[in-house]
Amino acid sequence: MKKLINSPDDVVADALVGIAAAHPQLRVDHEHRIVYRGDTPRQNKVGLVSGGGSGHEPLHGGFVGAGMLDAACAGEVFTSPTPDQMQEATKVVDGGAGVLHIIKNYTGDVMNFEMAAEMAAEESGVTVETVVTNDDVAVQDSLYTAGRRGVGITVFVEKIAGAAAEQGMDLATVAALARRVNESGRSMGVALTSCTVPAAGKPTFELPEDEMEIGVGIHGEPGRHRVPLASASEIAQQLVEPILADLDFTGDTIVMLNGMGGSPLLELYLMYGEVKNLLDRAGVTVARSLVGNYITSLEMAGCSVTLLRADDELLTLWDAPVNTPGLRWGV
Amino acid sequence: MKKLINSPDDVVADALVGIAAAHPQLRVDHEHRIVYRGDTPRQNKVGLVSGGGSGHEPLHGGFVGAGMLDAACAGEVFTSPTPDQMQEATKVVDGGAGVLHIIKNYTGDVMNFEMAAEMAAEESGVTVETVVTNDDVAVQDSLYTAGRRGVGITVFVEKIAGAAAEQGMDLATVAALARRVNESGRSMGVALTSCTVPAAGKPTFELPEDEMEIGVGIHGEPGRHRVPLASASEIAQQLVEPILADLDFTGDTIVMLNGMGGSPLLELYLMYGEVKNLLDRAGVTVARSLVGNYITSLEMAGCSVTLLRADDELLTLWDAPVNTPGLRWGV
Repeated sequence: MKKLINSPDDVVADALVGIAAAHPQLRVDHEHRIVYRGDTPRQNKVGLVSGGGSGHEPLHGGFVGAGMLDAACAGEVFTSPTPDQMQEATKVVDGGAGVLHIIKNYTGDVMNFEMAAEMAAEESGVTVETVVTNDDVAVQDSLYTAGRRGVGITVFVEKIAGAAAEQGMDLATVAALARRVNESGRSMGVALTSCTVPAAGKPTFELPEDEMEIGVGIHGEPGRHRVPLASASEIAQQLVEPILADLDFTGDTIVMLNGMGGSPLLELYLMYGEVKNLLDRAGVTVARSLVGNYITSLEMAGCSVTLLRADDELLTLWDAPVNTPGLRWGV
Repeated sequence: MKKLINSPDDVVADALVGIAAAHPQLRVDHEHRIVYRGDTPRQNKVGLVSGGGSGHEPLHGGFVGAGMLDAACAGEVFTSPTPDQMQEATKVVDGGAGVLHIIKNYTGDVMNFEMAAEMAAEESGVTVETVVTNDDVAVQDSLYTAGRRGVGITVFVEKIAGAAAEQGMDLATVAALARRVNESGRSMGVALTSCTVPAAGKPTFELPEDEMEIGVGIHGEPGRHRVPLASASEIAQQLVEPILADLDFTGDTIVMLNGMGGSPLLELYLMYGEVKNLLDRAGVTVARSLVGNYITSLEMAGCSVTLLRADDELLTLWDAPVNTPGLRWGV
């Protein structure tokens, strides 16, 4: 295992030290492993809390800041944070307008956030709403999930709900928008290589030199099938077709070509060109796009495609200013 | 070789298709393989042209836009662009105020840019100034270089000279600033793994599972020495100490912790924490920082550290608005 770490046990704690040093506008609670906006809580603004296992950076800590999340709870690599962390974050960010939990659909995350919401309501009287993302069309159930997995659309939910909260919308409205984004989005990924969880010390799975995993999850969970390594244009087809078969994307669409962490940006742009070509031919209007590493799986080579059907309201919220380490514009 | 490509021969051409599709505010000349600002040439603004081998993205094409480069010439992977490409870019971006060439110190790039400058002057009457970056403290001469290699400081030169040009400074002033940035910066890198050039089809070098290459170049050129794989805090020491021994960085400093392309952001933040700790102890004042993939070596695992000694003028130019795919703020 070749990694820039001190010890497998300290990876997350040490990375949080670096995040705090790199981003003085954020505040890091090292004891609870929570990354906060420096100015949270904001009175009468809905608070947004997300979190999950580490190893997907910039998600979620890199999306904390004005116009996006108020707090992100960091679990161990690929392991849910605890209810205590989530409860603490929920209490801290509440400015009186309630808190939205944004949760990727993995059994541990969903269960722990549910407990945290109950505890925050009972002990601190915080009103909590919840959105569970489940945009991955690859598999119905998976190793860690009942129902579809929550992946790339989470970035869009955090951005758009974050903009809505920043503009002063109330909790019910922000939560409804977040759910609408999730329901209007679909994703599909591919892995060319595995990744290695530091505590495990060896690759999560073995993938022969001439094969790839179509429909892989962001923790290296099995996807739809292993197939021979193919060209970029064939891979693009295998990602885009199941998405378009699952939901109608004629009309304005926001597209993300996301790297899994270990593929060069050169290849991600190349893949985006292939994906864009397929979307053009299918009559999908690409209104906005993102190409880069946004929701990763450590150093896994591969990529995923996320599409969001976006009306004028969602596009306006997408374009609204955001100031986070991972997404920044308008400021 | 597991890559998201169609064929090794088409990697750069196909990636440029994706860059054009992802960034409608840019204009891509596919024949000459040049990425332009959409609004170039701008009358009476100094034009900034850079370029080099592909495989280092976002450098250089990802740094084209308002407040940074006017054009970037893309060579084949790890191969200099041709004088023809550079001449074409130089002609196109000239708005009457002359053009600055920003060149990383590699023999092929320097020679080709020199020919391009002569041809642009002779055939089109463009006044060209040149800055050659050479910030890598690892080695005096290298496989492809007489003198030190140009690496991370190139990002700082493009940003700061870009801001100066945007503010209407004349060619001599912009060139002098660019040279001052280069002279005030130092870098050092480490590789944990090799990378694979698509046309070669196999890793550029072999690195045993328990070793790392200290002082590696951005094309996988040998560095100072191969040493046993060490902890992040020891690696940070081996990168920071040679930099601080080479130039006095007491005073305000801009720091970049740059990923080589294949290391997760989680590890880059962890490394930044270690580097920041060493800088604090050495009395270096970190005024600004960047953590992420800015000048990469395809999918190489590893990182580099760049320090720039910055007075108020350089900090103000650093903070000025920039709107490129790779760096964006203030807009």
